[in-house]
Amino acid sequence: MTALVRHRDGRVEKLGAERLDQIDQLCAVEGTLVWVSAASPDAGTIEVLRREFDLHPLVVEDLEKRGQRPKLDAYERQHVIVAYEVTEAASGLSEIHLFIGPGWLVTVTWDPTPLLDRLRSRFVSGNGLGGGGVGELLYAVLDAVVDSYFPELDRLSDRIGDLEDRVLEGDADRGSLREVLAVKRRLLELRRILGPERDVANQLLRRDLDAIDPATLPYYQDLYDHLVRCIDQLDVYRDLLATVLDTRLTVASNSLNAIMKRLTAFTVILMVPTLIAGVYGMNFDHMPELSWPLGYPMALGLMILAVVVSITFFRRRGWF
Amino acid sequence: MTALVRHRDGRVEKLGAERLDQIDQLCAVEGTLVWVSAASPDAGTIEVLRREFDLHPLVVEDLEKRGQRPKLDAYERQHVIVAYEVTEAASGLSEIHLFIGPGWLVTVTWDPTPLLDRLRSRFVSGNGLGGGGVGELLYAVLDAVVDSYFPELDRLSDRIGDLEDRVLEGDADRGSLREVLAVKRRLLELRRILGPERDVANQLLRRDLDAIDPATLPYYQDLYDHLVRCIDQLDVYRDLLATVLDTRLTVASNSLNAIMKRLTAFTVILMVPTLIAGVYGMNFDHMPELSWPLGYPMALGLMILAVVVSITFFRRRGWF
Amino acid sequence: MTALVRHRDGRVEKLGAERLDQIDQLCAVEGTLVWVSAASPDAGTIEVLRREFDLHPLVVEDLEKRGQRPKLDAYERQHVIVAYEVTEAASGLSEIHLFIGPGWLVTVTWDPTPLLDRLRSRFVSGNGLGGGGVGELLYAVLDAVVDSYFPELDRLSDRIGDLEDRVLEGDADRGSLREVLAVKRRLLELRRILGPERDVANQLLRRDLDAIDPATLPYYQDLYDHLVRCIDQLDVYRDLLATVLDTRLTVASNSLNAIMKRLTAFTVILMVPTLIAGVYGMNFDHMPELSWPLGYPMALGLMILAVVVSITFFRRRGWF
Amino acid sequence: MTALVRHRDGRVEKLGAERLDQIDQLCAVEGTLVWVSAASPDAGTIEVLRREFDLHPLVVEDLEKRGQRPKLDAYERQHVIVAYEVTEAASGLSEIHLFIGPGWLVTVTWDPTPLLDRLRSRFVSGNGLGGGGVGELLYAVLDAVVDSYFPELDRLSDRIGDLEDRVLEGDADRGSLREVLAVKRRLLELRRILGPERDVANQLLRRDLDAIDPATLPYYQDLYDHLVRCIDQLDVYRDLLATVLDTRLTVASNSLNAIMKRLTAFTVILMVPTLIAGVYGMNFDHMPELSWPLGYPMALGLMILAVVVSITFFRRRGWF
Amino acid sequence: MTALVRHRDGRVEKLGAERLDQIDQLCAVEGTLVWVSAASPDAGTIEVLRREFDLHPLVVEDLEKRGQRPKLDAYERQHVIVAYEVTEAASGLSEIHLFIGPGWLVTVTWDPTPLLDRLRSRFVSGNGLGGGGVGELLYAVLDAVVDSYFPELDRLSDRIGDLEDRVLEGDADRGSLREVLAVKRRLLELRRILGPERDVANQLLRRDLDAIDPATLPYYQDLYDHLVRCIDQLDVYRDLLATVLDTRLTVASNSLNAIMKRLTAFTVILMVPTLIAGVYGMNFDHMPELSWPLGYPMALGLMILAVVVSITFFRRRGWF
Repeated sequence: MTALVRHRDGRVEKLGAERLDQIDQLCAVEGTLVWVSAASPDAGTIEVLRREFDLHPLVVEDLEKRGQRPKLDAYERQHVIVAYEVTEAASGLSEIHLFIGPGWLVTVTWDPTPLLDRLRSRFVSGNGLGGGGVGELLYAVLDAVVDSYFPELDRLSDRIGDLEDRVLEGDADRGSLREVLAVKRRLLELRRILGPERDVANQLLRRDLDAIDPATLPYYQDLYDHLVRCIDQLDVYRDLLATVLDTRLTVASNSLNAIMKRLTAFTVILMVPTLIAGVYGMNFDHMPELSWPLGYPMALGLMILAVVVSITFFRRRGWF
Repeated sequence: MTALVRHRDGRVEKLGAERLDQIDQLCAVEGTLVWVSAASPDAGTIEVLRREFDLHPLVVEDLEKRGQRPKLDAYERQHVIVAYEVTEAASGLSEIHLFIGPGWLVTVTWDPTPLLDRLRSRFVSGNGLGGGGVGELLYAVLDAVVDSYFPELDRLSDRIGDLEDRVLEGDADRGSLREVLAVKRRLLELRRILGPERDVANQLLRRDLDAIDPATLPYYQDLYDHLVRCIDQLDVYRDLLATVLDTRLTVASNSLNAIMKRLTAFTVILMVPTLIAGVYGMNFDHMPELSWPLGYPMALGLMILAVVVSITFFRRRGWF
Repeated sequence: MTALVRHRDGRVEKLGAERLDQIDQLCAVEGTLVWVSAASPDAGTIEVLRREFDLHPLVVEDLEKRGQRPKLDAYERQHVIVAYEVTEAASGLSEIHLFIGPGWLVTVTWDPTPLLDRLRSRFVSGNGLGGGGVGELLYAVLDAVVDSYFPELDRLSDRIGDLEDRVLEGDADRGSLREVLAVKRRLLELRRILGPERDVANQLLRRDLDAIDPATLPYYQDLYDHLVRCIDQLDVYRDLLATVLDTRLTVASNSLNAIMKRLTAFTVILMVPTLIAGVYGMNFDHMPELSWPLGYPMALGLMILAVVVSITFFRRRGWF
Repeated sequence: MTALVRHRDGRVEKLGAERLDQIDQLCAVEGTLVWVSAASPDAGTIEVLRREFDLHPLVVEDLEKRGQRPKLDAYERQHVIVAYEVTEAASGLSEIHLFIGPGWLVTVTWDPTPLLDRLRSRFVSGNGLGGGGVGELLYAVLDAVVDSYFPELDRLSDRIGDLEDRVLEGDADRGSLREVLAVKRRLLELRRILGPERDVANQLLRRDLDAIDPATLPYYQDLYDHLVRCIDQLDVYRDLLATVLDTRLTVASNSLNAIMKRLTAFTVILMVPTLIAGVYGMNFDHMPELSWPLGYPMALGLMILAVVVSITFFRRRGWF
Repeated sequence: MTALVRHRDGRVEKLGAERLDQIDQLCAVEGTLVWVSAASPDAGTIEVLRREFDLHPLVVEDLEKRGQRPKLDAYERQHVIVAYEVTEAASGLSEIHLFIGPGWLVTVTWDPTPLLDRLRSRFVSGNGLGGGGVGELLYAVLDAVVDSYFPELDRLSDRIGDLEDRVLEGDADRGSLREVLAVKRRLLELRRILGPERDVANQLLRRDLDAIDPATLPYYQDLYDHLVRCIDQLDVYRDLLATVLDTRLTVASNSLNAIMKRLTAFTVILMVPTLIAGVYGMNFDHMPELSWPLGYPMALGLMILAVVVSITFFRRRGWF
């Protein structure tokens, strides 16, 4: 756990966890902005956070349990936001808990969150994150989170486009079905995260969160627009995926028809000469053809003729 | 039926049903909290409850009929909540009727409700359920109920994941279809319970229920969030299950195509040598091959060649 | 058409249609409650109703046309409710028109309505329908109507459960498809009735219908709850029925796969010995096996071996 | 274009288009009601309407373009309603533009509108359309329009019932699929018209259109109820049609299974005697049966036995 | 980038980008209307726009990133609208950013926008775009944008009609499936654009945008109606496309049944004479028919009879 403190003069100071008990005094100085970030906090760290920032018992419980739905909860002494960054974590989503108070922001993470980390580096270097208050910093954090969704959406679009191509090419292996299910799961997962996050953005827009300076509202509007755009995309993808699955069934059905036509053609093409051979294999005493000198070539010719005629017939109907 | 009475001093007293008529006096003492719990009440017990807590005739009717939808009804002298705990009961859901009044709470159950029972034990032991009023106790009860949903959701997730695996492995037995229908039924059942319960939680949040201390509102918000999360999950599961069923059809369709290709290949592979045998079984007087010394091995060789060529041909096209 | 008049003293008087012109005076006496019920009214009866209760032309038109959607219409001198009882009528639903005014209620029916009739008997006998006003009587009528839905829902549940069993057992006859369509139609029919009836119940709850005593509002709330529960059930049934139809397709598809595997197996099992017979039916001069003393049994043995091997092969793969 | 003028005394006068410039004066007389109706107006007629009734440029544009969505637009000097009568027109729907002002109503049509025409005849004859104002006349027109929907709904119901029967009887020809698509298109078309018309009816109910006398509001409520009923029906039909299509697939699937069982049975029934014939067609020197005097009948008997056994076997399993 | 300035006297002046810094003064003159249009602006142009029109940083960011969702954003010094014209661009949609301020309108485009260009020509020529203010010009621009949707909808309708015909004719090639997916994608794309644009039109209608003169509100209402009509159409098309895909599956299924019936018929027709040939190919010593003088023609006749009988049989059942 580290605390980054930006003083009024733009200077940024980095404090270790052991000095968190001075935070009260730091926050009290006007124009100072404190960003405390904790990664995979153990029970001790959670206790320190609870004590120093006066966290509500339910907030602590959420920290311990994790797996929260994105939300904005208002407590007497802090606001809590839960959001998710799309990352390389096992679940593909890294949970982020944000606690907001006057002059301070706490972020708690468990899985790697590259975009959030990059933002912290920018905060340290001081460039790009001007002298705004907590509202501006909160926007920067949420904007970083939302920025993590667009590449993921592009990846999903590629995967669905890829599935479309494979389906139209008649690819019927199990792998592509597994991929359909995987993409579906991912879409549902993201949808389940993004819907509540849009609601959070909307709440930030409408409700007077003291920490948010009205001048930054257009930024929150922008955040909201981005989330709505992501959700629109997800819904489009979902619809497309369903169509892909339907199409796949149709392709399989068409391909079955083609196979059956082929089978029918093969059956007829081979059974007719077999019948001719059967006829001349009969043992009647009086079968004039049998004693013809050219009987055998004639029979063979008849068979070849039958094959050629059948093939031509089925070719014409497109069955062969 | 037993009544648990917590006195102002934190002491808990356990009264038998026969002393319920003193409840009026007990409730009147400020700081006293009475929890009456009845299991599978008979007509007599219901009559006692009706008389002592002045229950509305409709409330009594609900007690007699059971099978109510989760709801929050406001009567002049009590509030009534119906909720369901997920349990091992035959239906998988145990109905709970809650009656709330100033200083008292009545819970009526019919099926086993382990989580509610555990809460009662905690109430007796006095730990964890501090000196809050009825509002806090009500929250504790509803929280216990909601806590029973999460393991069930995990079980459903496992069952669906299991079905996905079975489908992708091409398992087509009746058992897995029966399981699909069973999971579907369970999802619909839970959805039917959870939707109205979310509305109840929302009503508790918005409406001024005198019994609920504003300070406990964050807890009810938490309850509401949990219910919404469960419902989101159920909707995701429902969507996944539909996809599993669709996928199953596609798998069956693909597998049919594979079988038909195999059949076509088998037919051709076996019919060509049969035709050759037929040819040399013809009885023409003049068939030079028949008198060749190596005619027979040649014919056999021809057959083997035909088989090898057909197999190779179908192998290449992936039909065999 | 008969009019039942309950006087203030609890006495009930039964008047014939010919004395309806005194109704004005009867209703004027405070504490008197008049219930006029007409079955399959002819033009004359409708005219009498129109004149005595001052019905609006549109109300009369509805009486003549029937087939109305459940609704609550407010006219200057009366309120009109249309509702449906589930009965043994040809359409399975008996339309009921209710006209409500101060101190009087008119019910008009065309098809048999057993539950409504039973209520009238109770009104005559005076027990159970205490001295409440029109609001209470109206509730009793609507409650009787709603009570007719629950057994129907149970029947539908049974029919769907039955269909599920038949589908899982692979029953594919036309009868069960006809049943699917019939259940579907019934569900849609009920849904179309119950949705507007819920709205009527809601209007009764919210809007100040003078006739409804606030003390009876919990009863209307109960009515509303019951209707919502029925609708929830219908939606669940609809969803289940769709799954049944999907499952049926999957079952058919699986069964087709099994048949095709069987066909493939049969084809191979029979064609291999046929080929062997064909080989030894060839007429080559030099076929050593033909002159072997044990040639014939050897050939037969070879055929049997081929059959046994094929059967074993397909058994192992579960195709036979 | 003709103008029908009803004077205060109930007398109706019929004016030609050339006297439309007097309309201003006519409308000014209290108690006078003017109904101008134009069919397939050319540019000149539209210009006359524009000038005499002071139509807004957008209204004129709509007249020229046609194909409007049903709507109610309020302009400074007139209200505009667009509605559709179901008729025998090529598209099955005849567009009607209505302009309403104080004391006058203009209807413009392009396709035949029998119900609207009949209403005009009634207006001329004076019976049935009493001395109400524009509000009453507007209701009469809209009611005629809505009345055209019910027979169409009945026709659709018949067509769907017919499709159901054909599907259950296994009818699989292209004609019935074409009919499915045609019914679907019709349902969607009507749905697209009726939804906005319901909104128009609702607007008429809620918004104070000066022209509408509050006393006629129940009539508009009735109109609204009828439209809602039509929409409910359409939704039911849509649902039924989807089920019909699903059922059709299931029927086709079942029928395929039956065919494949038949094919399998035929294959086995014919291949077994062919194999027997093949066996006795082998050329082994030592085949004792060949020299038996009853060998041939025995072989034939064996074949017949095989056929009978196979048929019995498949009959029992219901495959033949 | 060019600026078109219409002076109060109706004269239009065309300024190059280099004189944009005078715009402030131009706009200040009452009755002057400035329309600045920029195509594919480079960083420099964007910077000029930013500086001259005081654009908010988020607006600039949107200009740089593009790919925005249609929206109406209100900033302190300008309103921003994003809309899309349907064009021949690669994506089929050309993004347009509109900035609106008192007396000026800026349009920024990247892809070709023929309808917008035509509007600019009309602005230059001065005809048709009368002396209205920015509100009127904004309407003209949005109306041009919406006008681009109708031909596209007609094209989509044609493509779907075409697909319907192909499906009913049993066309099963991959091309038509590719077309289904393409139409689907297009529908979803347009739906994603039109939904938010309808919301923009609605916001323009409801919210007091100072620039919009109340007298032009009917025009915006018209715009809104047109967008709603387009969306209705898209929803209808989506529904029809789904039905087409379902129908296709049914057609494929029916056609498979026909093929299998044909195969079964062929199999039986050819196997019966083969069996007869096999019988007379048996080598029994005592087969009287073999020595009959007419045995051979009899056998051939028997075969022909069998074929004729089988064909007749299957013809009757419609299998051949």
